[in-house]
Amino acid sequence: MGTLRQDPTTGGWVILAPERSGRPVGMRRHQRPDLPFFDPACPFCPGNEHRTPPEIVRVPGGEQWRHRVVPNRFPALSSESSGETSGDGNAREMGGLGAHEVVIESPVHDERLDEMDVDRIGSLLRLWRDRALALSAEPWVRAVVIFKNFGDRAGTTLDHPHSQIMATAVCPPELQHRSEVAAAYLEKTGRSVYSDVLKDELPAGERLVAVRDSFAAIAPFASRAPFETWILPREQQASFAELRDDQVPELAALLKSVLSGLRHGAKDPDYNLLVQSAPVGEESSRSYLWHLVILPRIATAAGFELGSGMSINCVAPEQAAGVMREALARVPAR
Amino acid sequence: MGTLRQDPTTGGWVILAPERSGRPVGMRRHQRPDLPFFDPACPFCPGNEHRTPPEIVRVPGGEQWRHRVVPNRFPALSSESSGETSGDGNAREMGGLGAHEVVIESPVHDERLDEMDVDRIGSLLRLWRDRALALSAEPWVRAVVIFKNFGDRAGTTLDHPHSQIMATAVCPPELQHRSEVAAAYLEKTGRSVYSDVLKDELPAGERLVAVRDSFAAIAPFASRAPFETWILPREQQASFAELRDDQVPELAALLKSVLSGLRHGAKDPDYNLLVQSAPVGEESSRSYLWHLVILPRIATAAGFELGSGMSINCVAPEQAAGVMREALARVPAR
Repeated sequence: MGTLRQDPTTGGWVILAPERSGRPVGMRRHQRPDLPFFDPACPFCPGNEHRTPPEIVRVPGGEQWRHRVVPNRFPALSSESSGETSGDGNAREMGGLGAHEVVIESPVHDERLDEMDVDRIGSLLRLWRDRALALSAEPWVRAVVIFKNFGDRAGTTLDHPHSQIMATAVCPPELQHRSEVAAAYLEKTGRSVYSDVLKDELPAGERLVAVRDSFAAIAPFASRAPFETWILPREQQASFAELRDDQVPELAALLKSVLSGLRHGAKDPDYNLLVQSAPVGEESSRSYLWHLVILPRIATAAGFELGSGMSINCVAPEQAAGVMREALARVPAR
Repeated sequence: MGTLRQDPTTGGWVILAPERSGRPVGMRRHQRPDLPFFDPACPFCPGNEHRTPPEIVRVPGGEQWRHRVVPNRFPALSSESSGETSGDGNAREMGGLGAHEVVIESPVHDERLDEMDVDRIGSLLRLWRDRALALSAEPWVRAVVIFKNFGDRAGTTLDHPHSQIMATAVCPPELQHRSEVAAAYLEKTGRSVYSDVLKDELPAGERLVAVRDSFAAIAPFASRAPFETWILPREQQASFAELRDDQVPELAALLKSVLSGLRHGAKDPDYNLLVQSAPVGEESSRSYLWHLVILPRIATAAGFELGSGMSINCVAPEQAAGVMREALARVPAR
């Protein structure tokens, strides 16, 4: 039978139902497509640079380049739209003001983030940070969402390794809610809920995936999905835009470890990677800690989840963290 | 470029981005598995009744039975669990008190809901209603969620036609939120937001899919997914548990039409069907209208949606409703 658990950072509940992993369709190893290292038809491969909209940033390196940032060719939001609202009470609309950028992570078509060396993962993290900083400086930006969709089940449409950055002129409800819960917790206790969670998780250890001097990776108490993993800084930083260069090598190494752990311990799932920062303008908040969330797409959110807003998770985070720790012990450190 | 639209029933925003339907992977017709009408290995097929937990309800009819309700063999929640909370501040748990039932919709392994005749869809709707009523009578039940997952991408694990009913001892956040938004609207205007929406949509017609004496089907203004469709009663009814027998034939016929329209107009997508009722105890609320939501799983919610709580929808509801109306004109009425 299930157990309900409450996420202290959102107030939301999840149902942990480990027995359900015995269902007809359980965890299966994902079949990765067999990709070439270069695909002449791919708009992100070297030689096809003219097929993307004009470059925003190019990070030099290697024979061509290390990373590129370009506007999304099919943007959901654009800085050319207006941010004006129109329509009456029950039909309110707003122009699609925003930004939608694509970060091409590597010139190599079949390279995976977990396979990149730590130095290149580090320069990618700095690039995410720099774009978050640049977008946050726009007067209309209320939030920056950095994310990566890895694999079909995570919603990717292009195999070439890439991530995306969106900036919005409204604060998305999910960020707003997290920020409010964190502010209420600070108001009540004088402390950050995220720091309190880390203070509990570090000595307890049962949900700890890995810990470094400046960062910790945990399977959160109310994990929404099997092998959900959060990476948090161990010092106060509300926004990923504040990440310092001296923190980058350790974060890069930890991210690489966690992704390798997922690959080898959790049957190589598709995943979404999200950077959850405080809304723009709340960078100096003492209530919030940015966190990098890796959400494997092992189960499909179905009718109950959509209708109730509660997730059903069939792998307890304590079990997931144990599997991850074992896998990390087998993966050679870089 | 996209446009943001606000859902008046939740306050949430969606991004409408019709240009994105030109992306490399757009809408594709779903490949349905080729199913036999009887599968000796299927626990829901006639002759295998002993393979399900003991029956809760059997609706007689045909050679064996028309529908059966059984407890889920892998329940996420159970009436044998306690509803007690435990754990301290940031690690709160609650026993998995609840109910998790499976409604076997037909004895025929490969029958689809849209293919059933109106009379049998009607008896299924009455069965959902009756189970909602029975579960609502339990003193610990705060909400009843009725749902159907059709197809792989909608999270189903068994092909045999079935739906599910879950009862929870906490009010799920999604229901709580909808109920609060509706109550605030009533407080402010003296009216129900759902009735006001219908009052706008019926004469305007551009987002109307179909209308009958007692029900209307619309593509909601802030549709979260291509071809999202809501069926609402045209009289005040807060909970599906209040559905009267005399309303059933019309609702059954309308549901059949809408599902046929999706099949023929929208390339036969996988979908989740949800019944969104007011929380248990709020059946007499004047602020809320139950609505049957059909959410096609054409696009995959990816990192942005998960991180922001905002959906990106690449088909405008006006366009979707037009396609549906055309399809309905071609599908023979039953």
